[in-house]
Amino acid sequence: MSRYGTQFGPDITFLGVDRCEWGDPATYADADVVILGAPFDGGTSHRAGTRFGPQYIRQSCYLPQNGSRPSLALRVDALADLRVYDAGDVEMFSGDAERSVRDLQEAVYAVASTGAIPFILGGDHTIAWPDHAGVARHLGQGRVSMIHFDAHADTGDIEFGSLVGHGQPMRRLIESGALRGDRFLQIGLRGYWPGPEILGWMAEQGIRSYEMTEIVERGLTECLTEAFAIATDGCDGVFLSVDIDVCDPGHAPGTGTPEPGGLSARQLLDSVRRIACELPVVGIDLVEVSPPYDHADITSLLANRVVLEALSGIARRRRDAADGTTWDPRRPLLDGR
Amino acid sequence: MSRYGTQFGPDITFLGVDRCEWGDPATYADADVVILGAPFDGGTSHRAGTRFGPQYIRQSCYLPQNGSRPSLALRVDALADLRVYDAGDVEMFSGDAERSVRDLQEAVYAVASTGAIPFILGGDHTIAWPDHAGVARHLGQGRVSMIHFDAHADTGDIEFGSLVGHGQPMRRLIESGALRGDRFLQIGLRGYWPGPEILGWMAEQGIRSYEMTEIVERGLTECLTEAFAIATDGCDGVFLSVDIDVCDPGHAPGTGTPEPGGLSARQLLDSVRRIACELPVVGIDLVEVSPPYDHADITSLLANRVVLEALSGIARRRRDAADGTTWDPRRPLLDGR
Amino acid sequence: MSRYGTQFGPDITFLGVDRCEWGDPATYADADVVILGAPFDGGTSHRAGTRFGPQYIRQSCYLPQNGSRPSLALRVDALADLRVYDAGDVEMFSGDAERSVRDLQEAVYAVASTGAIPFILGGDHTIAWPDHAGVARHLGQGRVSMIHFDAHADTGDIEFGSLVGHGQPMRRLIESGALRGDRFLQIGLRGYWPGPEILGWMAEQGIRSYEMTEIVERGLTECLTEAFAIATDGCDGVFLSVDIDVCDPGHAPGTGTPEPGGLSARQLLDSVRRIACELPVVGIDLVEVSPPYDHADITSLLANRVVLEALSGIARRRRDAADGTTWDPRRPLLDGR
Amino acid sequence: MSRYGTQFGPDITFLGVDRCEWGDPATYADADVVILGAPFDGGTSHRAGTRFGPQYIRQSCYLPQNGSRPSLALRVDALADLRVYDAGDVEMFSGDAERSVRDLQEAVYAVASTGAIPFILGGDHTIAWPDHAGVARHLGQGRVSMIHFDAHADTGDIEFGSLVGHGQPMRRLIESGALRGDRFLQIGLRGYWPGPEILGWMAEQGIRSYEMTEIVERGLTECLTEAFAIATDGCDGVFLSVDIDVCDPGHAPGTGTPEPGGLSARQLLDSVRRIACELPVVGIDLVEVSPPYDHADITSLLANRVVLEALSGIARRRRDAADGTTWDPRRPLLDGR
Amino acid sequence: MSRYGTQFGPDITFLGVDRCEWGDPATYADADVVILGAPFDGGTSHRAGTRFGPQYIRQSCYLPQNGSRPSLALRVDALADLRVYDAGDVEMFSGDAERSVRDLQEAVYAVASTGAIPFILGGDHTIAWPDHAGVARHLGQGRVSMIHFDAHADTGDIEFGSLVGHGQPMRRLIESGALRGDRFLQIGLRGYWPGPEILGWMAEQGIRSYEMTEIVERGLTECLTEAFAIATDGCDGVFLSVDIDVCDPGHAPGTGTPEPGGLSARQLLDSVRRIACELPVVGIDLVEVSPPYDHADITSLLANRVVLEALSGIARRRRDAADGTTWDPRRPLLDGR
Amino acid sequence: MSRYGTQFGPDITFLGVDRCEWGDPATYADADVVILGAPFDGGTSHRAGTRFGPQYIRQSCYLPQNGSRPSLALRVDALADLRVYDAGDVEMFSGDAERSVRDLQEAVYAVASTGAIPFILGGDHTIAWPDHAGVARHLGQGRVSMIHFDAHADTGDIEFGSLVGHGQPMRRLIESGALRGDRFLQIGLRGYWPGPEILGWMAEQGIRSYEMTEIVERGLTECLTEAFAIATDGCDGVFLSVDIDVCDPGHAPGTGTPEPGGLSARQLLDSVRRIACELPVVGIDLVEVSPPYDHADITSLLANRVVLEALSGIARRRRDAADGTTWDPRRPLLDGR
Repeated sequence: MSRYGTQFGPDITFLGVDRCEWGDPATYADADVVILGAPFDGGTSHRAGTRFGPQYIRQSCYLPQNGSRPSLALRVDALADLRVYDAGDVEMFSGDAERSVRDLQEAVYAVASTGAIPFILGGDHTIAWPDHAGVARHLGQGRVSMIHFDAHADTGDIEFGSLVGHGQPMRRLIESGALRGDRFLQIGLRGYWPGPEILGWMAEQGIRSYEMTEIVERGLTECLTEAFAIATDGCDGVFLSVDIDVCDPGHAPGTGTPEPGGLSARQLLDSVRRIACELPVVGIDLVEVSPPYDHADITSLLANRVVLEALSGIARRRRDAADGTTWDPRRPLLDGR
Repeated sequence: MSRYGTQFGPDITFLGVDRCEWGDPATYADADVVILGAPFDGGTSHRAGTRFGPQYIRQSCYLPQNGSRPSLALRVDALADLRVYDAGDVEMFSGDAERSVRDLQEAVYAVASTGAIPFILGGDHTIAWPDHAGVARHLGQGRVSMIHFDAHADTGDIEFGSLVGHGQPMRRLIESGALRGDRFLQIGLRGYWPGPEILGWMAEQGIRSYEMTEIVERGLTECLTEAFAIATDGCDGVFLSVDIDVCDPGHAPGTGTPEPGGLSARQLLDSVRRIACELPVVGIDLVEVSPPYDHADITSLLANRVVLEALSGIARRRRDAADGTTWDPRRPLLDGR
Repeated sequence: MSRYGTQFGPDITFLGVDRCEWGDPATYADADVVILGAPFDGGTSHRAGTRFGPQYIRQSCYLPQNGSRPSLALRVDALADLRVYDAGDVEMFSGDAERSVRDLQEAVYAVASTGAIPFILGGDHTIAWPDHAGVARHLGQGRVSMIHFDAHADTGDIEFGSLVGHGQPMRRLIESGALRGDRFLQIGLRGYWPGPEILGWMAEQGIRSYEMTEIVERGLTECLTEAFAIATDGCDGVFLSVDIDVCDPGHAPGTGTPEPGGLSARQLLDSVRRIACELPVVGIDLVEVSPPYDHADITSLLANRVVLEALSGIARRRRDAADGTTWDPRRPLLDGR
Repeated sequence: MSRYGTQFGPDITFLGVDRCEWGDPATYADADVVILGAPFDGGTSHRAGTRFGPQYIRQSCYLPQNGSRPSLALRVDALADLRVYDAGDVEMFSGDAERSVRDLQEAVYAVASTGAIPFILGGDHTIAWPDHAGVARHLGQGRVSMIHFDAHADTGDIEFGSLVGHGQPMRRLIESGALRGDRFLQIGLRGYWPGPEILGWMAEQGIRSYEMTEIVERGLTECLTEAFAIATDGCDGVFLSVDIDVCDPGHAPGTGTPEPGGLSARQLLDSVRRIACELPVVGIDLVEVSPPYDHADITSLLANRVVLEALSGIARRRRDAADGTTWDPRRPLLDGR
Repeated sequence: MSRYGTQFGPDITFLGVDRCEWGDPATYADADVVILGAPFDGGTSHRAGTRFGPQYIRQSCYLPQNGSRPSLALRVDALADLRVYDAGDVEMFSGDAERSVRDLQEAVYAVASTGAIPFILGGDHTIAWPDHAGVARHLGQGRVSMIHFDAHADTGDIEFGSLVGHGQPMRRLIESGALRGDRFLQIGLRGYWPGPEILGWMAEQGIRSYEMTEIVERGLTECLTEAFAIATDGCDGVFLSVDIDVCDPGHAPGTGTPEPGGLSARQLLDSVRRIACELPVVGIDLVEVSPPYDHADITSLLANRVVLEALSGIARRRRDAADGTTWDPRRPLLDGR
Repeated sequence: MSRYGTQFGPDITFLGVDRCEWGDPATYADADVVILGAPFDGGTSHRAGTRFGPQYIRQSCYLPQNGSRPSLALRVDALADLRVYDAGDVEMFSGDAERSVRDLQEAVYAVASTGAIPFILGGDHTIAWPDHAGVARHLGQGRVSMIHFDAHADTGDIEFGSLVGHGQPMRRLIESGALRGDRFLQIGLRGYWPGPEILGWMAEQGIRSYEMTEIVERGLTECLTEAFAIATDGCDGVFLSVDIDVCDPGHAPGTGTPEPGGLSARQLLDSVRRIACELPVVGIDLVEVSPPYDHADITSLLANRVVLEALSGIARRRRDAADGTTWDPRRPLLDGR
């Protein structure tokens, strides 16, 4: 069998969508979205375990894994309305971060260059570098902004003596020119990292970071609206990078570097929905789900719902564009319209 | 011993209230509320374990199990101010759903026909069918509205080839005429079930469902107020059905089909309090607590508090009716009035 | 898709072996062994959760799920040397035990009648009834003996008002004539069930039960040898039924009714190996793995190895029969012979 | 209600046996055995949690809690054949070790002086001091030997500045004259405590300690036989003190100071059985079960079985004495004799 | 080594700050804050385990333990900007509550009398008595107000026959005159304890308690502002006592008496920040973290962040006082000012 | 601070022994044994988490961490009788396996070249390559035999496209000449890896592997005695490599690739003791302890005891050599001799 499949456990696909091979574009010629697993935790600075993220995110759901998920909120069935494929995992050896990110970037680029949206399931946040870079390689350096949900800035320079790691991907992207610093939006930062030197570098790049204090004071809705305007100013597309630790550890305990005081699960889902509905998303990754630290799979399940929320938003955005309709969040569920 | 007791573990009662036998009304002639355990998980579509719900809900509390629980918020001691009995569990074989729901309905009806409020501790949500139906059999078909807290609509038709199950009770109630579709209020729905066909059936019945999107947009308080008006329009009493999975998995991990993005524990407790204080409650069930998936018993403890909140609200409502007083949520705890 | 697949989670097969449909014998015409999942826990008298047994047993392994497992001990690769198929799960509704066992028996019979060995992954022990009966229906009433590893006798009459349940399958088999009482061998019983009445019935049937005391005093090897002689006396084949709770809870915590003082994992694996190597096995079931009570999947992993040990023994027995060779347990691993 | 009941959780009895009050001997005038809970963990040097031992040991069983437990091995039903009462817990405040042990000794003495065997469920091992002393106060100083299963010697002098604690009870007993040092037998010691000074004191007292090395080399059976001869030489009765940590942490993880390399659960159960069958037991305690560190209640369940094994042995010993029969461990379970 | 160190586990300090000995003021002559561990759980009325609180709070962090923690929100590095020492643990024997609180008070007083702020890591809430009293002994009876975050009032009189325990410290403080009842502010009370008698006593003392109902209705911000005014009216300093169970069990499961419906982690962190920034804090304790009931250390991590938030607020308050600057919570993280 | 310390968490040493720096031999000039942490899990083929092994092994003990551990069995206090230092962790980045093993080998060589025994705490088994090679670089290629406890052969060639990983270290050692294949002894292999090709290579090298079947049939004692003779034939020293997964998952659940049917903890401890007492050990590593998969730290605690057992054996061997005495495992603990 030429298909690599999932690196750990049986060869499954996200909730039963069709399989494809990223190296063979013919297998996903009509794809709207292609899911790629990145089972890598070699870049983590503390707790590992995210290598099992793709496996758990794909299947953590209590409903039949039948390739259909009608959204109550958005009234679309993303898995049916869009052509979503799952290419399985990219082979990644956690003990060789450099080779792993190189190989992953190839896969992301392969997908992006077909016009499909790559949706990468991590894995630790190291992968944001190849994820965004793979898309930018297709759409152009600096042409893809990024909205980044995270407790941490991920803008470190060198950690453990390496340029590659889950604390450094954003720096690599900006330094390489793939991502414009002033089109890089961060939501949910908090805690005690990084220190002044790195913050200084970030300010110089023109990054806009919404720390939790500002979010609490101004409201998440207002902050997002502001961020959306920046993200779409002079860029052709938006890359969405969601680190599950943006949520409070009470809502997402299964992660490697949990930082208390984060968003609620509800807030994250609503934010992802808005982004997918309102912005031209060209790539997504979802990272730092660490099943060995989870309880009753609630973090994996939340991640599964982040995927569905994003896919449903994309489907709704396309339908609205086709129909000229608009989604009204206040409309009752059973309202016949 | 004629008393059946608890099906699993020692024969205990809810926090030490007095025992009774549901089959012998003389043992609870003066009851205001009678607790019934429904240790059944044969209707679950995914994770089981709710058979241990009654046992855990009854005893998950760090205070002495002495039949007294003075509410700080409501200034009543429901277990002392009301006559609350615990009839133990109805014998239910999870491998025979049909017989189990039949037997449970008998028990609920027996209690309801004495004028006491039956309070059923599940068990999975399959039991809402016999729970409401047992009350309606006493008060009249269509005379008892329902307020339903849940992540899921529970209005499926046939699952696993059966009409009985935790995804179908509400349909059975409406189809049988026990419950009027247009007096059925749902709070907290979200996620990816059911699909258009079932939603269509629900709309035809005139069900009013508050999906989380609407709740976030309009506010829970406003939604509840609106729902209360419907629930009391042309009905003689309200049945309250609380599926613990209406809460976010972060607050209630110990359940079978957790759906991220739900209410906080605080919101659920406040909502139950309002219902018990403001509406003519004639029956209650509390379902889907699955102890094997819980951590440190926090879900069981939340369920125990839902019971106490409901009982305290009922006690307060009766006292206010007797006194002509009104509860003021803004009054400081130690205000002497 | 006509294939039913796994009832919970994605449609996977045991460690990646080929798929088949039990209802379509053409899909497994050359099968030596056909695996069937029985995701049922409606017959449990206490903790549930075995519905997830098939799903976990199939995939609990740290090696690639590639349909190959060379046994160090037996020097065969059962998954390659035998034709092993996985037919997925039989649809079983835990809330309807009677229908579930009826449907399962059909599936087992369908497989057995092709000459393949059915290997059923439970599920609770209720399924031993349809499992053995399905084989006996093909090979003849009373023609298939049973060797039964368990802490419990499973010879109860009626539990929870039902003839069907995990404490009663062996009685149903003997009463129905499928299994001769005096060709029913039990290994590992212990604890405090059943009482004298049922023990009396068991003695009348001529059952031979090895309680742990006898096993400790006489040695497991001697007891097994004695049992093997009985099992093959006047029967055409042996059905092996393994309840994982025959092992000590320290080695197999993930089960519903754990009874301290059992076999070690090593003892169980060696016993299963001997049976598969030395006896004409015609059917196997493996039951009572309850993942929600497991830790780090060690019970599921043990069960996975019980499957492999049995398959490897069958493969070795066939090879030895063909070669005229004999397996020597004392031979060093790297001995070139 | 005059009965104190259980200190934590509902007022239950051991598997449903009858209740009594230790302060009122009339409530257990015909008792053979009286169970007392000692919910105390104020004497632990490391992990706490044994305060919940009594509650968990009483109810950790998957069978109905109906006051009946027919032993397969010993063919007695101890809960029916003996008169066993449960006096609930002695009120113990873990923050006041001195008062707690004083009060417990009163309770044990009250029970022992009626001729019943006190069976104390700990709690940490601090309680061995009042447990044995309470019995010796009735039967005479130095007249009651002790067989002590433990990984630790518990013969420390002062710990945390206190004479009272779970590392010191045996020293207090010997120093006070309640227990003769040369009639104190220890089984299962291992690890790295105590040091030479305390070992020297122990040798001076004539204590006989079987460290695991000797047990492995000579065999547990031979060691026990030797110990039994000493224990009954010049003493009127034997006190059995079982610290669950004598078992390997794999078999009993739920304890405060686990020491790898211990007995298997099977070995402990068989040893307790032999003691109860062969020796004149006058008191028993079972300690150091710490439910918060347990998994799936396997340690509590093992402790529950230690209680039943001891009670069954006592019942069998009495029946054999009455009948002139002898128990044969090699006899098959269903052998009609 | 004269230093006592940590009572359980290796001798570590809070995130690597310098060590000192509380009995030797010369070792912390320049201290702004001195951390003291109080590894005591002998006063708990239910679940124990808080003895491990100090050990876990000190090290639960995924960042290097290097004595530096730059706060993103407050732009100070408390561990560098302040002189923070860790004196290790006070030796406390959980089995002797009276001696333990006496010894702890000595240590707290020793620290307070040097002018440093004592920061005590519990342990159960029993320690609030010696913690506040030790400070008041230095600053004067009635001169130190208290702001108390908790689900429980902790104003009981006698529990388990003792004046010392985690339900009674506040009563001891008020009765002794150390704390003025009308300068005692409670935030977050809820649930079903205490009853009318104790509430009556509390009202008589002039205590101001913000029950969760009032907090939800009026908003936490307004309640805090009101409380701050009272706390600083006629007192010289404020003692902050944080019981982690003020948070909802979903955010802080690792505690002994969890009460559903509490604050979010975000709310607690923001409240502690405000207090440290706005009020003259003279002592702090943080209690009831019980690691054995925690999951993935999220409660210990939250507690670690409560410590850092308090220290950062103190550092910021001092810097603002020196600079004449003011902290603006709405200012973007990377705003250059 | 020049000392690197522990990579994760506070800078602690093994049970409180003195610190040293591996790069500065003057800091351990008189060392008998130097402990090195290897916090690396980048080479694991499945579950990660062993990066926390060094941290947990160092401190998992319920006794005071005071640099003293008197062995009951061997009557030595290894931490006092030997000069044992802890050099902290070697900095290892799990994402760069090649650099990590290179750096580790330097550290091991630095220690070995001073004549001290390096004792490396892993980490995954990848480190056996640098561990043994670092010693052999000092003592000579092929002059150091290896006794290897493991469920797995670890003789793979290339995994995940890399020569470095936890399935390949033994092949690297033999291929490089550091280790003679015919002086490589394996104990405890079992399961389903590797296949015939690798087994063939192993046989060619003259490796002697004791699979569990042979161990059960012949007895562990006899197998070890045989292995000891080979290990000391023509080699100057023995390297002991212990993979904790040689034990059964019931005894050591906290590991990455658990294989059912292994040794008991008792057997491992006794084996390590014999090796340390009877053979000229020149280096040791202990690997594959994965704390996130552990329960109640029982695996870490077992590993801690493996370290102590080895150190105690070394101490006893030295004392016996000096005294001309011999250790007698049958001698009673309190026998005065």
